[in-house]
Amino acid sequence: MVAPRKELVEAIPRRDEEGWYPTVVARAELADYSPVRGCMVIRPYGYTLWENMQARLDARFKATGHKNAYFPLFVPESLLLKEAEHVEGFAPEVAWVTHAGQEELEERLAIRPTSETIFGVMYSKWVQSWRDLPLLVNQWCSVVRWEKRTTPFLRTTEFLWQEGHTAHRTADEAQAETMQMLEVYRDFVESDLAIPVVPGRKSEAEKFPGADATYTIEALMPDGRALQSGTSHNLGQNFAKAFDISFQDMDGERRLAWTTSWGLSTRTVGALIMVHGDDGGLIMPPVVAPTQAVILPIWGRKPEERPVIRDAADRLRRELLDAGLRVEVDWSEEKQIGWKHNEWTLKGVPIRIELGPRDVADEQAVLVRRDDPNPRPEKRSVAWSALADELKMTLNAIQANLFERAAALRTTKTTSVESFEELSAIVEGPRGFINAHWCGSAECEATVKTQTGATIRCLPLNAPAEDGRCIVDGRPSTARVLFARAY
Amino acid sequence: MVAPRKELVEAIPRRDEEGWYPTVVARAELADYSPVRGCMVIRPYGYTLWENMQARLDARFKATGHKNAYFPLFVPESLLLKEAEHVEGFAPEVAWVTHAGQEELEERLAIRPTSETIFGVMYSKWVQSWRDLPLLVNQWCSVVRWEKRTTPFLRTTEFLWQEGHTAHRTADEAQAETMQMLEVYRDFVESDLAIPVVPGRKSEAEKFPGADATYTIEALMPDGRALQSGTSHNLGQNFAKAFDISFQDMDGERRLAWTTSWGLSTRTVGALIMVHGDDGGLIMPPVVAPTQAVILPIWGRKPEERPVIRDAADRLRRELLDAGLRVEVDWSEEKQIGWKHNEWTLKGVPIRIELGPRDVADEQAVLVRRDDPNPRPEKRSVAWSALADELKMTLNAIQANLFERAAALRTTKTTSVESFEELSAIVEGPRGFINAHWCGSAECEATVKTQTGATIRCLPLNAPAEDGRCIVDGRPSTARVLFARAY
Repeated sequence: MVAPRKELVEAIPRRDEEGWYPTVVARAELADYSPVRGCMVIRPYGYTLWENMQARLDARFKATGHKNAYFPLFVPESLLLKEAEHVEGFAPEVAWVTHAGQEELEERLAIRPTSETIFGVMYSKWVQSWRDLPLLVNQWCSVVRWEKRTTPFLRTTEFLWQEGHTAHRTADEAQAETMQMLEVYRDFVESDLAIPVVPGRKSEAEKFPGADATYTIEALMPDGRALQSGTSHNLGQNFAKAFDISFQDMDGERRLAWTTSWGLSTRTVGALIMVHGDDGGLIMPPVVAPTQAVILPIWGRKPEERPVIRDAADRLRRELLDAGLRVEVDWSEEKQIGWKHNEWTLKGVPIRIELGPRDVADEQAVLVRRDDPNPRPEKRSVAWSALADELKMTLNAIQANLFERAAALRTTKTTSVESFEELSAIVEGPRGFINAHWCGSAECEATVKTQTGATIRCLPLNAPAEDGRCIVDGRPSTARVLFARAY
Repeated sequence: MVAPRKELVEAIPRRDEEGWYPTVVARAELADYSPVRGCMVIRPYGYTLWENMQARLDARFKATGHKNAYFPLFVPESLLLKEAEHVEGFAPEVAWVTHAGQEELEERLAIRPTSETIFGVMYSKWVQSWRDLPLLVNQWCSVVRWEKRTTPFLRTTEFLWQEGHTAHRTADEAQAETMQMLEVYRDFVESDLAIPVVPGRKSEAEKFPGADATYTIEALMPDGRALQSGTSHNLGQNFAKAFDISFQDMDGERRLAWTTSWGLSTRTVGALIMVHGDDGGLIMPPVVAPTQAVILPIWGRKPEERPVIRDAADRLRRELLDAGLRVEVDWSEEKQIGWKHNEWTLKGVPIRIELGPRDVADEQAVLVRRDDPNPRPEKRSVAWSALADELKMTLNAIQANLFERAAALRTTKTTSVESFEELSAIVEGPRGFINAHWCGSAECEATVKTQTGATIRCLPLNAPAEDGRCIVDGRPSTARVLFARAY
């Protein structure tokens, strides 16, 4: 018997070693470095994951009344300058187009770092009456923000995302939309990606440039650092003022609209990789896994048995596809079975289905769960007739288990502290989510950031009221906020 | 009774008038002009059409073994320079990024006008052995080509498309792939968009910069001009040479791969608008229509009847959605019914379903086909119980009728000519597709182009062998080629 786990451990760094993340991204063929500094190529295996994520998220957007559109890649410089905080926030990382063909352009064009400005111009045209509201539009596209240091998915100069932009008649409606989309993100990330998150509001210092308020979902990585996994902004009337998005209200008065924007990007793929992966490589949550189960024919020693196994594998493949499962067969005959185990383990396919000569004779197959942490994972024989149902149940169980595992880890790595020293010690040591009292001042927030590198990830929505004292200056506080070092 | 047709004729230019196309694009809310020169905003109604087109095309790509990926937006200048013909073809229309934030870049970055070069670099890395072939990848993205004069969908500086890029072990396989994807395009455009096309090969002068051979599908617009609606290129070993895409073959020898590329863009939306539209506005082919049927409640004069009509409309809506149809209800109560007729006519929704008080009492609805050319289109009462089936049949009938109508028009506007004078007369007069003999020389091709503005659209794949003489220099020819003025 080949011992796949052993080979594997030799092949890639351990989960808690520095090189694990880039090695897994490359070896699982999720992404590759491109000849353009800071930009990656998302390979078919990684892109199929993104497509599955898109489909699930897009269905939620449509179910809440949003429609997709496409706005230009370019933002003329004069437009970007219209909202003061916004341009200040984004100007340092904007890529500029200055020439077309041989000609120099009269006005520089920014590659969109985000599209509030160009949506603003169009909304000003489209919104005339209260009857035109709400305007609920989303776009899937790429954006560019020049980054000094990049890591595949987590931080790249160009990345893929969706950006929703909405306009409303009242402040209340805009706030309701902002919270609704935060909840859409929470539900998507927790239900489909099996990643527990803390929803909350950003501090003034951490909010989106140009927003009245930014809401976020924060996930905790196994190394104890936080990853912002989706944000929803209430833009108040800031962009409506800058771009004159105004309408005739029911009472005949001309009023400014209230706008929101919200986005989730390929960064979240980075969270998925880190939260679920183990020493063997990736573990894909079944709901979005490109391949939910892989059929591995065990060819055996007798060549005359191969056609029978091949037919059985193909029959099962078709039956499972018809049952709505995403399955494939590893048809290769020249690779060793141990090598194949490692490869599919590395790629994180949730279930391996082994099919050898004896299995075919008995009309059964052997299931192995990717999330089984044992060095010799449990093998379970299942009759072909029960296979589709059994796979569906097992995939559900894996999805639930991945979430529970991540939630348990988060609980372990979440601490409440009462002093700045305690906070420092955790940030310098084991890291993790830290609940602490904060007086609300930008000065105390900045002190924590400069001295420890931790930031306020959010003011959690579900934080219980609790009287306490700011860990920096001792002033009163009525609820704890969430601190962490972040990606 | 309001006479919707009359109002309509006053509202938008006639089909054969200059202003029809931009008016329909704007009024139907397919697209709008943006503040970026040459770039449009694709609005939700237009984008939903594109999404439906994408879904149908993407399914065909996947069924033929292709997977999606995402490659960077930027192409470093040095890469673009690697294939000589390619850079010569694209350099005049490339947008250049020269700065990021405050810094000037060491090397200029082109916004991709197409991605052969960047795929080339990555393929050179990924292809090592014959076992890595074929490599079958597609991406959906936007590309930028600086244009002097632009028209929504037909020619814009930024446009959306898909670009497939494949690498193969042998020349035969690459040629088979090139032809397979041409056939995918033909089938998609004819079956789903109901636009008849002529598949054929481009002349040397008209082929893609860097290709050995370019194949195209050419559609004829009602004004007698041709529109290239999808292209498939056999790139031979040109890019494999430039980027060193080589592999160890079965016999151990190192060989260069053979590559292809193929693309279809939002230009094809322009073809759909022009081919099917009429004096009333758009006509959407049912297979890709954003809305296949619109339910129009006829509120009547008695306010007490409204709730009953509303309930019936909502019930029908849900039943039809459940049956897999894309339907919506026009709930507005303040607009006149004549105005609504015009609006849904303009938007080209294939079937209008009227629902008045008497219809509700009789549990029936009235169907009106958008493709009915009569000023007073036929109205047909259908029982609610039969509605879903009846709609499906009628949508199929509309799809077939649109194709037949376009095919008939194309037949009318296709002429065979025997002399340069005859060709000139048609190009100057009624225009259309012109079948004529050509000796194959670039000189004769250029003469036709300079003197008439017509180009060789393609050497049709199905052109029968026929001995003749070139209409320019009288030299022998063995088959007719297709000439036309083009968009």
